[in-house]
Amino acid sequence: MKQIKKVNIWKIDSDKRVPAEDVVIREEAYTLFVNDEEVVTQICSPWHLEELAAGFLCAEGFISRREELLDLTVNHRDGLIWAETSSSGPRGFLKRSITSCCGRGRASFYFRNDAENIKPVAGEIRVTSGQLASLGLMMEEKGVLFRETGGAHGAALCRHGEIICFFEDVGRHNTLDKIFGYCLLNNIGMEDKILVFTGRVSSEILLKTARMGIPVIASRSAPTHLALKLARELNITVVGFMRKGRMNVYTCPERVT
Amino acid sequence: MKQIKKVNIWKIDSDKRVPAEDVVIREEAYTLFVNDEEVVTQICSPWHLEELAAGFLCAEGFISRREELLDLTVNHRDGLIWAETSSSGPRGFLKRSITSCCGRGRASFYFRNDAENIKPVAGEIRVTSGQLASLGLMMEEKGVLFRETGGAHGAALCRHGEIICFFEDVGRHNTLDKIFGYCLLNNIGMEDKILVFTGRVSSEILLKTARMGIPVIASRSAPTHLALKLARELNITVVGFMRKGRMNVYTCPERVT
Repeated sequence: MKQIKKVNIWKIDSDKRVPAEDVVIREEAYTLFVNDEEVVTQICSPWHLEELAAGFLCAEGFISRREELLDLTVNHRDGLIWAETSSSGPRGFLKRSITSCCGRGRASFYFRNDAENIKPVAGEIRVTSGQLASLGLMMEEKGVLFRETGGAHGAALCRHGEIICFFEDVGRHNTLDKIFGYCLLNNIGMEDKILVFTGRVSSEILLKTARMGIPVIASRSAPTHLALKLARELNITVVGFMRKGRMNVYTCPERVT
Repeated sequence: MKQIKKVNIWKIDSDKRVPAEDVVIREEAYTLFVNDEEVVTQICSPWHLEELAAGFLCAEGFISRREELLDLTVNHRDGLIWAETSSSGPRGFLKRSITSCCGRGRASFYFRNDAENIKPVAGEIRVTSGQLASLGLMMEEKGVLFRETGGAHGAALCRHGEIICFFEDVGRHNTLDKIFGYCLLNNIGMEDKILVFTGRVSSEILLKTARMGIPVIASRSAPTHLALKLARELNITVVGFMRKGRMNVYTCPERVT
């Protein structure tokens, strides 16, 4: 399946207007059914959909181990994904937990699932700033779709200066879900890994990192204040604006040596 | 309410590591209740929340006219927004419409609401590439939060070379919802306006533009192939990579003269 599409465009430069050809990234809608119930429609780049679906199911608390995913079928023609799991879905999927938001100590959690299931990350790993910078460059090199279309985000799971897997997608969240699913399907632990990412580190990205159990997220882009608040509570190292050997370490700096 | 927060960080440049101060954009979770029913939790920058909520209700088909919004109350302390509307919610909110996706002509719609409610945009406006380029520069100048934090998206509603309103937010979608809500609350028509935007033009952004009835969206960033497919069906002009006097016109080029 092609990852990009050619389109005819008009290129304008000041007063000049010329017909030209451009390439854009593919994007499709896939609807995920879990045990015959419609759960979500994901807008994504239509490759590595098994990883995407498995990762989504982990990230949202539908499953927590490989064995709980009994079957996974992708119907590309109609944009449907069917998953069979041994557990019933999580309680209160996407429901706000008002009590835990407003009454309890961990004030920054907002979804019931998150407040109940996400634990601080223990990972005692260390990484040098030189290793991080070099992983950032390696990921940029792998980002073919971004270079071709400007429309892709990328995420790489790394260890010891190496990239273990790398995914590009129109959606920031999808790149992380695909890593999550890849690790589940291949029995790869994440507690000693580093996530290198092109997108902004928002609270949702931070919570996903926590669910994955990854202790370090390093991004080319900016973090938000809520992401940093959660990162402090969840013991996650956030590195931002990682470009050309420079970077900002926002939280848990002891892991960056 | 402050839009940014100061944080203490470590700045790393090659081998040097120095403590420094940085600013990050604010992000909060607000849960929207419509007629006492919990509808959605939005992660957003916590300002212009009346506009955000009103825009969301329009964008998702809960209301279509100002009069249908009977009351709107924001509780900043607990992160809650209460809306009272005269209509019951839309049928099948966020539910995939499998029939219309796979069986009918307009193959690219994926939500039931969209397939039922979104019509091609009629707007017969014309804009010169010079006007577009100048609007892009004006928006960049207004983008204080992006310059300060690198973590904000911006969207401006424009007409005749002027910016009518401009919003910055951590979420791309929120900037458009805030414009939608602003226009609803102030009775501003959108069929003769232009949307100037910092984010990528994905299918979801394109569908929102269509719901707003805006005939032209011009972005600094890339479009996706599904967004362009929808733009052709819905008669919307998509301009991308608008930077420094250059731009690509992807669809309905007759509006750019």
